[in-house]
Order: sequence, then structure tokens, then C-alpha cells
Amino acid sequence: MKKSIHFISLVFFVSLIPSVTYSQNKDSINIRKIYDFYLTESKCYKNLEVLCTTIGGRISGSPQAEKAVAWAKQAMYDAGADTVYLQPCKVTHWERGAKEMAVVTYPGKRLNLNVCALGGSTATPVSGINASMIEIKSFAELKTLGEKNLIKGKVVFYNVAFNPKNITPGQSYGESVNYRHNGAVKASKYGAVATVVRSMSSLNNDSPHTGSMTYDSADVKIPSFALSYKAADDLAKALKEDPKLLISLKSFCKIFPDTTSFNVIGEIKGTEKPNEYIITGGHLDSWDTGQGAHDDGAGVVQSIDALTFFKKAGLKPRHSIRAIAFMNEENGLGGGKAYAKETEKKKWKHIAAIETDGGGFTPRGFGVDTTAGLYNLALSWKPLFAPYFIDHIRKGGGGADIGPLEKFGTPCIGYECDNQRYFDIHHTPDDTFDKVHKRELELGAAAIGSLIYLIDKYR
Amino acid sequence: MKKSIHFISLVFFVSLIPSVTYSQNKDSINIRKIYDFYLTESKCYKNLEVLCTTIGGRISGSPQAEKAVAWAKQAMYDAGADTVYLQPCKVTHWERGAKEMAVVTYPGKRLNLNVCALGGSTATPVSGINASMIEIKSFAELKTLGEKNLIKGKVVFYNVAFNPKNITPGQSYGESVNYRHNGAVKASKYGAVATVVRSMSSLNNDSPHTGSMTYDSADVKIPSFALSYKAADDLAKALKEDPKLLISLKSFCKIFPDTTSFNVIGEIKGTEKPNEYIITGGHLDSWDTGQGAHDDGAGVVQSIDALTFFKKAGLKPRHSIRAIAFMNEENGLGGGKAYAKETEKKKWKHIAAIETDGGGFTPRGFGVDTTAGLYNLALSWKPLFAPYFIDHIRKGGGGADIGPLEKFGTPCIGYECDNQRYFDIHHTPDDTFDKVHKRELELGAAAIGSLIYLIDKYR
Repeated sequence: MKKSIHFISLVFFVSLIPSVTYSQNKDSINIRKIYDFYLTESKCYKNLEVLCTTIGGRISGSPQAEKAVAWAKQAMYDAGADTVYLQPCKVTHWERGAKEMAVVTYPGKRLNLNVCALGGSTATPVSGINASMIEIKSFAELKTLGEKNLIKGKVVFYNVAFNPKNITPGQSYGESVNYRHNGAVKASKYGAVATVVRSMSSLNNDSPHTGSMTYDSADVKIPSFALSYKAADDLAKALKEDPKLLISLKSFCKIFPDTTSFNVIGEIKGTEKPNEYIITGGHLDSWDTGQGAHDDGAGVVQSIDALTFFKKAGLKPRHSIRAIAFMNEENGLGGGKAYAKETEKKKWKHIAAIETDGGGFTPRGFGVDTTAGLYNLALSWKPLFAPYFIDHIRKGGGGADIGPLEKFGTPCIGYECDNQRYFDIHHTPDDTFDKVHKRELELGAAAIGSLIYLIDKYR
Repeated sequence: MKKSIHFISLVFFVSLIPSVTYSQNKDSINIRKIYDFYLTESKCYKNLEVLCTTIGGRISGSPQAEKAVAWAKQAMYDAGADTVYLQPCKVTHWERGAKEMAVVTYPGKRLNLNVCALGGSTATPVSGINASMIEIKSFAELKTLGEKNLIKGKVVFYNVAFNPKNITPGQSYGESVNYRHNGAVKASKYGAVATVVRSMSSLNNDSPHTGSMTYDSADVKIPSFALSYKAADDLAKALKEDPKLLISLKSFCKIFPDTTSFNVIGEIKGTEKPNEYIITGGHLDSWDTGQGAHDDGAGVVQSIDALTFFKKAGLKPRHSIRAIAFMNEENGLGGGKAYAKETEKKKWKHIAAIETDGGGFTPRGFGVDTTAGLYNLALSWKPLFAPYFIDHIRKGGGGADIGPLEKFGTPCIGYECDNQRYFDIHHTPDDTFDKVHKRELELGAAAIGSLIYLIDKYR
């Protein structure tokens, strides 16, 4: 019995090993071809330059966002899409208006602070908000002070800095973004008149980082601002000197009714399973203050390239490949929701969904859902990725736009790149084309392309 | 028999596993402490700012290099060195002089090219060199044309670009640097009057990259220049239009007799084996055109930090630790040779030598010599490094300054970081402090510190 098992095992392995080796060799050759294309012929860097420097910031509902939709449609056709589909989606429409102001005064001193309104915030009254302040380090502290009636009538200053001990600034962002997103709702329950939040920033400079915030429809809507890292330091120091100082805040933003925009979906037909999709997407909208280069022009142009590389590397996809430029990721997720809704309606079968929304920096790896065994399959590809310094295949991935597909059993994957510089410029005027490095962007696109090739072959 | 082997194995493993686990847990806690120090208290970024912005470029033999020696001595004491030793070394002394000129003329056209003299080059005559040119793509082509007497009296243009298909620009540098280093010697044998070489650059811009070149004492010494990437493109285009164009070259550099300078060696005494050393070094000298920030101020300040972290993390080294700021790496290796010479004389026992000379970018890993089993030992530490994105433990490492120690059986290690941006600024006026990212520099220092901790514990 033992012997026969051994014999069977032996036959099995002898028959398997050469074919695995052959297959890995072939994959290794094809991945090298894919990288060759990306490092010499890819248009992604040029595409990003056009998007960032001729259109620039493109917040949902703006004329720039609509220009970006038209640009993406053409760029997808240029990349070789068989069809490009503009998928309608409901999006929020918020405008910043004139530059915001924050001035702190206390006996003998006057301090101008660099601030910006958070996306979705109401404006201050025309005369501004003039109030004393209270510095808060946690929601627990807010609750304690709120219950003692010490928040009422005040401007709440959420002063929660990134923890430098975290190895990735992304982790620090995750730990503190709640103060930006939900700080106004929580403070207004205790009668605060406005909030200012320390920017979600890994860099000590004077650029305020905008970003989304929400209101609870049951609440009073209070204006909400981000302070630059430096302004937050200055304010904390001033509050130590005079806890009774007054702040004067002005913002001019407007909330408009929701409007209609589009996801841009470019598709190349699969040869064997045209009704099964591998999708890769980034988001086309960006904040208004910068050019949306790393966030997320990079992800859009990397995704568009997925329509090109098969042909350029002399390969044919078995499944249909979709590149998606999602709309409204930054302040509403209207695009992601619309795609999920149509998926449900049309029963689209996605064998994998990839999102690239972490910047155009040097690739490190992928976060991969365990759904349908994809994580284990991806782990088996580690040796194929090793020559390209793609080392991290981590459990659990995805992204904001593809997240709604998880409920249909779609395995989701988040592309992950070097994170150290991202939150220096995220949601600031400094997120511009010149901050993106051509080869780093291309290497990221090549990593995503290679992953698509492998999923297409082995699923 | 089988049973007893199993039993022995079982006893062995049961006795081993908890102690390994305990030990790894303890290491994991200590490495976390080391990272905590580096990410919150390290002076390496501040040190780099002082070195780059108050001293700046510091080529061997210059007053700036001597200032850097004095600065490093003090910085090592400040970092907690028990002793700091200035180790004399013979260094080359070359000065660039006034800004170089290169002008191409052909009927109706005149083209100014951005060039710089290569380090070690002779100057042109005061009247300049005026000659026709020949473009060369390989030494094989030089040989063929030289033997046909087509090189004589001409300026040789080595036009060998980085291969963008290489995954790291470091590989491209390795493939093309020979044209910079030995191009003049080889061309002069066929009667060339000067050489211009395409910069060793991964970036298409107008900054020429200087770097070392040598002469063979038997040869005529011909002046040697680097062209910016753009200038090399422009020149190649002009040569297509008119292969008979004339180039006019002027340089003003001077070669002085060798002089004496110093390696700066800071040491903390080991508690158990004070006469066995773990050394970590970078080079203090830099090219004259930039500030020597990534190359190699970064390596120097990371090495100096190795004198601090044990105390800050509440640890004591068993072996003595040396931080070395080597002199003259760029154009002579006088410092590395002097250290090896004294090692031989005093029979210093080095249990490991680490070099950090690849820039201050996000760490990726280490190249480790197989000598004395160090590579296999380092591989066993991979799980300890994994939380810090240190993934690459590669066979074979070292560096230019520690290389001469290999003949004594010293296991050498090269610290390796993200390489994509390094050759954009390497040896150019753009290698300045503002190009170095604080956290990336600190993470590199922490990786090196953690490696020293592990070597110290397990050797």
C-alpha cells in the first residue's frame, strides 16, 4: 500500500514538475515581455502629464471632471479598447469658492493660519465664525468634555498627529482620518460651532490637506476646516500661551444638489470567456486644490495601460479586460456604487477586481482577498514577481471603488506601492505631475499588468 | 531505530522550538525598540542637513573635505562614541576650475552643449580642443574603427544610454560606467584627442553627471567630459545631420600631487568581545558639483547613528561597533585602502563590515557575503525584518570601501535601498539635501541598526 502510494506520488510528481517548470518558464518569459513593453513603450506617463497639466484638479461635478471623462474615453480608445462605455453615476457637487481664512487673536498677538475647507463642508456665515477654542486629542476626550458642557459655542481643534512609529504613513492615516471625516458630526452634538482638524500629513510644512467629511442629516451642519501641519503646531502653541484665544474663521464653499457624471469603462474582449471580466481601476476625480497626480491620475493611467499590454506583448486575454476610471471616489463613491449596481442588474461575472489608488510610487506588492482561493494562487506566483522586487503578497485587499463588489463574491485586490512620500502631498496643492517618477509609475503599471496576465491565464 | 530517531527528533524539536520562539520574540521586541528610536529621536536627518548645507560638496583634497572631517569627528562624539580616531590616508587631489564649455558648429548652426569634466581628467589647452568627432556605441566598435585609423585626431563620443528594460538603474550603471572610467585610455591608444561620454543617467534632463576616470601611465592623457542626457541626444542628432561637424571643448581642471586626509572612525566598546568589530560605513567625500546628499552623506549619517541606537534602545553591544566615514571613495579609494592596511597591520578582527552607499531611499534589503555562513544566518532573520518591508536578502554584497577587507575573510554586506531615483541625481548638481526624505533616510538607518543588533547578538 505504502509502496503504491509512493509510486503514484512519484508518477504524479514526475508528470507534474516538468509541466509546472515549463509553465513557470513560459510565464517568466511573458512577464519579461510585459515589463519590456511598460519600460519602453507605455504611454502612461505621457497620459498622466496630459491629464494633470491640461485638465488639472477635477472634483466631481466640475467642468474639469467632465473634461476628464472625455479625455479618458479617448485615451481608452487610443490604448486599444474595443468599446468604451460611459456609465452614468450620481455624484456629489461641492465647490470650495474663495480661499479660506483663519486668524487667531489674543492680547498683543495675531496669527494667520493656513487652512482649507474640508470637502462637503458648509460655509461659515459671511461675517465668519468668531469663537474661543478647545483642543481635543480623542473622541473619548470630546465626550468627557462635551458631557461637562465645555464644547458648546466653541471651535473644536482636533489635534491628532500621525504616529511616526508606524512603518507606513498609510497606517497613521487610517488611525486619524476619522477626526477629519466624522469630527464635525460628533462635535456638533455637543454644540460646537466649527471644527479645525490637523491635516492628515506625514510632512511638517504649511500645506493644508483637504479631504472628505460628512454630516448626519439629523445634525446642525457646522463648518469644518483642515489646518496645515505647521498651522496646527502654531495653534497648539498659541493655545498653551492663552487658552482663551479667539479664532476667526471664514469659508465660502457651496453644496449643490447631486448631479450626474460618468465612470469611463474601456473593454477588450476575451477570446475564450468574453462574459467573464478582470477589471482594474483608479479614480478619475480628484480634489480641487492640486492636479490629482498621485491621487489618482496615476491609478487611472496605469489602468488604461491594461488595455494595451496584451497586444504589445503578443498575447491574447482569455477573459474580457476592463479598465475603469471611476468618478466621485473622493467625496461620495457615486462611481463605485453605480458600477456595483449595474453589476447586480446585468449579473456581470468578475473573476477579479484590482484597484490602484495608493500613488504612482515604486511597487511593493498586492493585498489579495482570500475569496475563491485567489490569495493562495497569488502566493504561488511570488517567484515570478521576485525579479521585479514585488515581494508583498498580503491577505486582504481591495479599495473604495471596488469594495461594493465584494458582496457578490468578487475577489478584490489592492495594488500597493511605497507609501513613504504619499501623505506628504495627498489632497494638497502639491499633488502635481512633477512629483511622479516615470519609471516608478511604469513599474507599477507593469506589476498590475503582470498580475492581470497571471489571473487571466490561471482562472 | 526509527522510533528512537523520531523520539530524539521530537525531544530535540520540543526543546528547541520554545527557545527559538522566545528568542525571536525578544529580538522582535528589541528591533521594534530600535525602529522606535530611529523614527522619533534619530539625529541622522539633521546631521545630513548640516553636512550638506553648511559644508556642501567635499571632494578629496579640498578645504570642504577637511571641514567635513572635523564635522564628522564632532558628530561621532555627539552620537556617543567612546573614542574617535582620525585615520590618515593618501588621497588624490583634483580640482575642476572654471565651468567647462562645449560648442558644436556646422554650416549655419551652433550648438552649446552642457558638459562637465570627468574627475581626474586633464584640462584642455588654453585655446581648447577643436576637432571633428566620431560616435561610438561599444569598445568593440572603437577597436574596429581604431584599427582602420578612423579615430586619430578626433573627439570620441561614447553614446551608450542606460537600458530602460533593466529593473534597477544600478544595473544600467554597471553596464555603462566603463565608458566613463576607461573610455579615455582606450580612445587615446587610437590617437583620439578627447572623449565626451553620455552621462550615466536615468533621467532625460540637462544635468551632466561627473564621476571618476583614470589614465594608464603609459598613455597620452586626453581630456575627458560628460555630456548631459539632453546634450548627448542633441549631439547625436547633429552628427546625423552633419558627420563632419566640429566640436570645440574647453576645461580648466588641475591634477595636484596626492595629499593626506583622514577616515573618521568612531567607536563604542563592546562589553564581551571588545577586540572584535562590527563596522558600518559610508563615504565622507563627494563630488564637487552637488552637496553629496544621497551620495553619500546619507550613508555617513546612517553609520554615525549606529553609535547611538544601542544606548537609546536600552541595549549593550557585545562586540565593539565602529562607524566609519571613509575619505576619497569617489576618486581613488584612498580611505578604504588605508583602513584595510591598518587592519592587516593591527590584525583587527571584523566579524562583519557593512557599507551604505546607495542613497537615502526606502530600504529594500541587504546583499550579504556567504563568508563564514553569514548569508544563511541573515536569511534566518527574514521574519524579523518582514514587518519593516526589508524583503531582499541577496547573496553577495559589500561596497567599494569595505571591499579590500574581503581578502582577510571579513563577511561584507551592502545595504540596498530603492534604486529608481538614485541615478537621476547621482554625481550632479542636483544631489542636494532637499532630495532626501526624512523617513526614508531614518528607515534605512533603522534597517542597518537592526542588522547590527542581530549580528552582534548571534556572532
